[in-house]
This record gives sequence, structure tokens and C-alpha cells, in this order.
Amino acid sequence: MSELTHLNEKGEARMVDVTGKEIQIRVAVACGEIRMQADTIAKIQSDQVAKGNVLATARIAAICAAKKTGHLIPLCHPLPISHCEVLFDFPNSRDRILIQASTKIAAQTGVEMEALMAVSIAALTIYDMCKAVDKSMVVSEVRLIKKTKSAYA
Amino acid sequence: MSELTHLNEKGEARMVDVTGKEIQIRVAVACGEIRMQADTIAKIQSDQVAKGNVLATARIAAICAAKKTGHLIPLCHPLPISHCEVLFDFPNSRDRILIQASTKIAAQTGVEMEALMAVSIAALTIYDMCKAVDKSMVVSEVRLIKKTKSAYA
Amino acid sequence: MSELTHLNEKGEARMVDVTGKEIQIRVAVACGEIRMQADTIAKIQSDQVAKGNVLATARIAAICAAKKTGHLIPLCHPLPISHCEVLFDFPNSRDRILIQASTKIAAQTGVEMEALMAVSIAALTIYDMCKAVDKSMVVSEVRLIKKTKSAYA
Amino acid sequence: MSELTHLNEKGEARMVDVTGKEIQIRVAVACGEIRMQADTIAKIQSDQVAKGNVLATARIAAICAAKKTGHLIPLCHPLPISHCEVLFDFPNSRDRILIQASTKIAAQTGVEMEALMAVSIAALTIYDMCKAVDKSMVVSEVRLIKKTKSAYA
Amino acid sequence: MSELTHLNEKGEARMVDVTGKEIQIRVAVACGEIRMQADTIAKIQSDQVAKGNVLATARIAAICAAKKTGHLIPLCHPLPISHCEVLFDFPNSRDRILIQASTKIAAQTGVEMEALMAVSIAALTIYDMCKAVDKSMVVSEVRLIKKTKSAYA
Amino acid sequence: MSELTHLNEKGEARMVDVTGKEIQIRVAVACGEIRMQADTIAKIQSDQVAKGNVLATARIAAICAAKKTGHLIPLCHPLPISHCEVLFDFPNSRDRILIQASTKIAAQTGVEMEALMAVSIAALTIYDMCKAVDKSMVVSEVRLIKKTKSAYA
Repeated sequence: MSELTHLNEKGEARMVDVTGKEIQIRVAVACGEIRMQADTIAKIQSDQVAKGNVLATARIAAICAAKKTGHLIPLCHPLPISHCEVLFDFPNSRDRILIQASTKIAAQTGVEMEALMAVSIAALTIYDMCKAVDKSMVVSEVRLIKKTKSAYA
Repeated sequence: MSELTHLNEKGEARMVDVTGKEIQIRVAVACGEIRMQADTIAKIQSDQVAKGNVLATARIAAICAAKKTGHLIPLCHPLPISHCEVLFDFPNSRDRILIQASTKIAAQTGVEMEALMAVSIAALTIYDMCKAVDKSMVVSEVRLIKKTKSAYA
Repeated sequence: MSELTHLNEKGEARMVDVTGKEIQIRVAVACGEIRMQADTIAKIQSDQVAKGNVLATARIAAICAAKKTGHLIPLCHPLPISHCEVLFDFPNSRDRILIQASTKIAAQTGVEMEALMAVSIAALTIYDMCKAVDKSMVVSEVRLIKKTKSAYA
Repeated sequence: MSELTHLNEKGEARMVDVTGKEIQIRVAVACGEIRMQADTIAKIQSDQVAKGNVLATARIAAICAAKKTGHLIPLCHPLPISHCEVLFDFPNSRDRILIQASTKIAAQTGVEMEALMAVSIAALTIYDMCKAVDKSMVVSEVRLIKKTKSAYA
Repeated sequence: MSELTHLNEKGEARMVDVTGKEIQIRVAVACGEIRMQADTIAKIQSDQVAKGNVLATARIAAICAAKKTGHLIPLCHPLPISHCEVLFDFPNSRDRILIQASTKIAAQTGVEMEALMAVSIAALTIYDMCKAVDKSMVVSEVRLIKKTKSAYA
Repeated sequence: MSELTHLNEKGEARMVDVTGKEIQIRVAVACGEIRMQADTIAKIQSDQVAKGNVLATARIAAICAAKKTGHLIPLCHPLPISHCEVLFDFPNSRDRILIQASTKIAAQTGVEMEALMAVSIAALTIYDMCKAVDKSMVVSEVRLIKKTKSAYA
């Protein structure tokens, strides 16, 4: 029998049955980065309004995509998440923007795909908004950094 | 005036006006990778049916997401793409799956975001299907590798 | 600290965390109107079949949009609503159609945006169906008129 | 008063109010078939990779559509289903593919429309993938074969 | 090489490249039926308003689904259709409703899947609205009956 | 015969056939307003970051909704718009925010519903973000102010 839980005994794709699992508070945090030229970072940061809008747009896109995760990842359960927050940071190296997303729900299964989706779409939105001035961007190191579950009263 | 083309003179987000641009055949190719344990790769490959389904599922998810790019990236133009193909490769290092996506359209603007979206969602789908057996996966090096335009008869 | 609950301490947009809030039965009622020429109202009402279809189409569009509210309003929680009803009324002034929508759910947060969405999309659908014969239509007075919560057994 | 539960007293469409109904584990199973030429079935089955991909694609499309049922059927409640599985079978008559889908949720209303949606979209996806080689296909006998509810602990 | 045009040389799913195909006016007509008890048909027809709404709802659902075909059938090209019409008929046998849908576009590829989608979703919407009073319904004989292309000036 | 162009001869809803209409550059501009307390406007404007984000979020929501108009208004043609811009203004009365949206496409039919959709969703997004501090908001005067078509080279 397959150890890959999304495949049934014949190896065919299916949604895992989580109906009987306990409702718990589930939190996930994912992060990632988009590498770019120092000049692009300067352009984003120097123009106060522009900066607000590039990151604000990416943040909104990320939250919206987190809510659509179940419509994008075929075997993900559709989950009405109850929290999503996206943060950006500019490390001193001036060669990348760090992205972190956290998601939360009280449900029968976790929300790590929602957090990873938020990070990925935030990165792609930054890419889209800066691609006219920077052809070197790379989205990288997208990964889960925290996943917890705790009792739901 | 901002050099970032998606921001108008006040730095506010807007869709770039491409109405007057020439309709040309536009092709984009993007690639990326998902790093994972050799054991996970072995699990995917050793079970013929399972392998077919993990990659087949990721491929379908990628194509479907490419078609929805304009609904996921706020300032992307909605583009009815006329071709999308997704390829996977297993390098000898046995520590990652390489993903490549190509997209095509005859339109007034290019399809690089569609190709990048396909690669990202393919990677996240693989992540989702294997996360029960591998907690170490990282999506990385997602980037554009080709973008061309040519005359549309 | 910002009093606008959708903005975190730095003023950045985020989904409010409602995970720990109590599940209650939540009802919302919104209303609004679309002003139009008396002649347009007469056209809608005189043709029995046509009338049924203009309002029936608007009603269905409204219910469908209420269900998609979390995909349209960026910081709205996605809520699987358990009831939605849309009513139309023709006041004696013969210069407008009144629209009322009620929504209901047992959840951790309310459904006023769903009710407002239903009213707005009902109005726009009527606009779309009548715009060939009336260039004067205006959607107006869209507002919340009731919001309650009560114990969920 | 209308006996059709989706119509209110005036015969106008509305979502039925299920807010007060008991949360129970609800299962539905639907089935259907797509009739085709024996030659088309042979093409699907003889090419091992192709076969895997035709049915794998149809299976993924079916699961994704089941999750979107509330966005496709106007008066369906949006339901975050917790399980979906799709099976195919080739009867000895060699003139059709049988499709079966099961769906599951702990909720206030049932998931039969989700199961019927999965069967219908699986059939249409097979149709789409084979229509270049077979103009005779017919989707038929789509129906509910099981619907149960049981206590949710 | 595979004769199934949606599978590439390795048998992997892909969207067929239609970029270079000629833009032509393409029309498709599909039909199907939903079998039900004579009593259910009488209920739909006897209540004039109710009837209008059951079929009006099904018609709207069908048109909306036709527009989403490219988001539901994985390898379908997303096509901004320029016409869709849905008709219902009650044969003298009083045991079924006949459904016909026609779709049209000026594009590089045809719209038969859109017509088939409209018929299928119309049938499922009728099913949803009548399932409380009739457990015997079956969706059947969904098929393409016409597909043409002609010069686009 | 009905003068309402979305209804066929029997008064049943259908998408108008625009296949044969000339491709022209079509522009639409719509506007509207959201009335609110002076205090709410002050809160939005005084906090520079918060202000940027409330309006930035509304602007992004508006653009995204404009792109989805064909999926929200049942008889609207799905139109891949090639431009969308959303502007906000604070009149001296300090009792409302004015919203204006312009949309553009080279197509067979106009984009006024897209512009009206953008205005409506911008207003509802502002409503959503401010509803915790202001219960008096009203969305009003949503209307088309310009619609043009010109030759497409």
C-alpha cells in the first residue's frame, strides 16, 4: 500500500478523508524570498507611495490566493481559513525581499498549503510588478517553517 | 514619474494599458525545482501508478493555474492562452525534481507570468502530495528562462 | 495602534483573526435600489415572462455572488453561508426597484458583506439586462439595515 | 405553497435555510457512464501512459469540480467537503467507461450534488480528451445511488 | 505517437497548441435530458412562477458554466464565448425535460465543450431544485449534435 | 418581440450574440461614492500607511473584480480587458469618498459593466475595512459617465 496519503490502494489520486479527524486550532507559517537587483529594491523603497503599493498589492494577492488554495491544489481540502497575515522584510544584503505568511483555522486538517500559497503568490506578484525593470528575479526557498495544532475549546 | 510600469504617476496600482499594442505570437518558458529527500523521489518513481499520478496531478494543476493567472496576480491581464505544456525531470543528484513550463498566445502582451504560475503550482502540488512523508521539501529557483515574440500572420 | 481592525500595527492589510471567536448564528440584511425610467420599469413588468426573467436572473446572480464574497473582498473571511434570500419591490413612485438581501450562517464572524454583495450584484445584473433601453440607471443607497447574532445550540 | 424547497412562497428562487439543521456525517455516491467506440477504449487502455493520463486528468478534474459545486449550482450551499474519491471501470461490453464518485462531509446538508458534479465533469473531461478520435461519445445515466447520514461525535 | 491530441509524445497531458490555427466563426450545439416523474414535471409546469424560476435558474447556471468551461475541463482552452443560448422542451411522454444549448465564438478552436457543459449544468441545476420531491431523476443522453466553422470576415 | 436585448423571443435569458460585431476600441468610465462619517475619513487619511492600504486594497479588489465581471453578471460576455484604472477623491464636504473606474478593450462589445463592477467592489472593500469604526456607511450614485468606441487599427 502506498505511503503517499493522497493515493489510494491502486495509486489513484483522491482527497484524503478527514471527516472523522478532530477539530483543532491549526497554525502554519511559511516563508520564501524573491531575489532581485539592489537597484530594483531601491526603486521599490525610495518611492514611498510606490513601495506601499508594490508590497500592498503583493500582500492582498497573497491573502486572496490563500483563500483559494483548495481551488488551486487539486487534493487540498477547501478550508475557510480564519486568519492570514503576510510580512515582508528587506535584509541588509539588499539582494532580496523575504516573505513570510501565517495562516490559521479551527478545522480537521492543517493549513500549511495555504501559507505556502500565500508566499508563492506574493512573490509572483512582486515579480509581475517589477519585471519591466528587472529581468533577473528568482523566487526561491519557499518552505514551511512552523506547523502547530492545539485544542479547540 | 515611476519607472515601475504598473504604478501610475501617483504610484497607485493600475493595469497597464496594452490595448494599442500589436498582437504578436508570444512564448514564455519558466522553470524551477522542488528539493526533497532521495527517499521521497524513490517513492514517487518506484510505484509506477503512484508516480504517474503525482506528476500527472501536478501537471494538471499547473495547466489549470496558468489559465487562472489573471485571476491570481492582480495587475496581470486576463489572457486566454492558446498553449501550455509542463515537463518534469529527475536529475542524477536525486535530491530534487526539475519543473519546466511553456506557455503561448497571440496577444498584445506576454505570458511569462502564466509560465511562472504553472511552475509554482506544479511545485506546490507535488509538495501537497508528498508532505505526509517528507517535511524537508523546498520550492526554489523559480525563474523565467525564455521570452520571445514573433509576427502573427 | 490603528483602530481600523483590518490593519495590523504597521498599518498593513491582514485578515482579522477570528479563530477564537464564538460560533453564533449570524444574520444580516442589506438593501439598496436601482433608479430607472418609468418606461423601463413598465417594460420589465408588462411582459410577464420577461419580468420573471430579469428579476430571476438578478436574484440568481445575487445569491451566487454572496457565496463568492470571500473571493471578491480581499480581507473578508471565506464563509460557507447557510442561507441567502433576495427580494425586489416596486415602489409607487415607479422610478426605482428596491432590492433587499438577507444572509445567515453559524460562524465566528458576521455575514453583512455577503448581504451587501448580494444587493450590489442584483443591481448590476438588472443594469446589465436593461442598459440597452435605459442609459439613466443609477445604483444607490446600498447599506446594511440589520445585523444580529444569537446563540448556536 | 410550493413543494419545491428551493422556491419561496412566491415561487422565487432562494437558498434553503439550513442554519438550524444538525451537523451530521453525510455521504453521497453517484455514478454515470460515457459511451464510446471500442476503438477509443482500446486507445485509452493500450497506451499505458496515455491511459493513466486520460483517467488521471478526468479524476483530478472531477475532484476539483466537486469542490466548486456551490459556485456552479446556484442554490447549492457552498460546502467544504472533507473527502472525494472517483473510480472508473471498463465493463466487458467494451462500449463505455463507468464512473463512480463518492463525497463526504460533516455538515448541516448533504453532498449529493457534489458527487453528481464529480461524475459529470469526469465524463466531460474524458469527452474532451478523446473527442479528436471519437465523434460518437454520449454521457449518460448520471444518477445518485447512495445517500446516508450518521451521527457526528 | 499518440493519436489522442491532448497527450504529447510521452503520453503526458498538455493543452494542444492552437496559436497558429485560423480564427473562424465556430458554433456548437449540444443536447441532453433529465428523466423525472410525471408528477415532478407537473409541479414544475403547473405553478407558473415556480416553473419560470426552475428553468430560469437552470438556464442562468448553464450560461455561467459555459463561460467557465476552461476553468473546469483541464485541457480546454479558455475561450471568451460571444454567444450562449439554452432551450428546454417537454416531450409528450411527460417523463423528461429535453435540454439544448448552443455556443458561438470567433476563435482558433471550437466551443463544443462549452455547449456540453451548459447542458450538463442545466441538468444538474434542475436536479438540485427538484431533488426534494423526486429521488428518481437521471441525467442522460448528453451529446454533441452540431459543430460548424465558417469564415470570419 | 422584447426590446430587452438579453431576452429572446420567448422572454428567456440568453447571452446576446456579438460574434459578428466589429472589433473596436471600447472605453467605459463609471463612478460612485461611499458616504461615511468625517471621523472615518480622518482615520483613513491621518494614518499615512493605513490610508495607503485601505485605498490600495480597494483599488486592487476593484481591478480583480473588473476582470471577473463575466463570471459575476450572468449575461455579460467574458472579456479579457486590456486596461483598468481606479481613482479615489475626497471632496471638501468630508462626508464621502468618490470612486472612479475606467476600463478598456479592443473587442466586439463594450466594457461598461466592468467599470461599474470596479466601482462597486472598491466601495464594498472600503466598507469592509471601515465597518468596525463606522456603522453609517452607504454606497451610492454608482453610474456610467462615459462610454466610447473608436476604430481599432
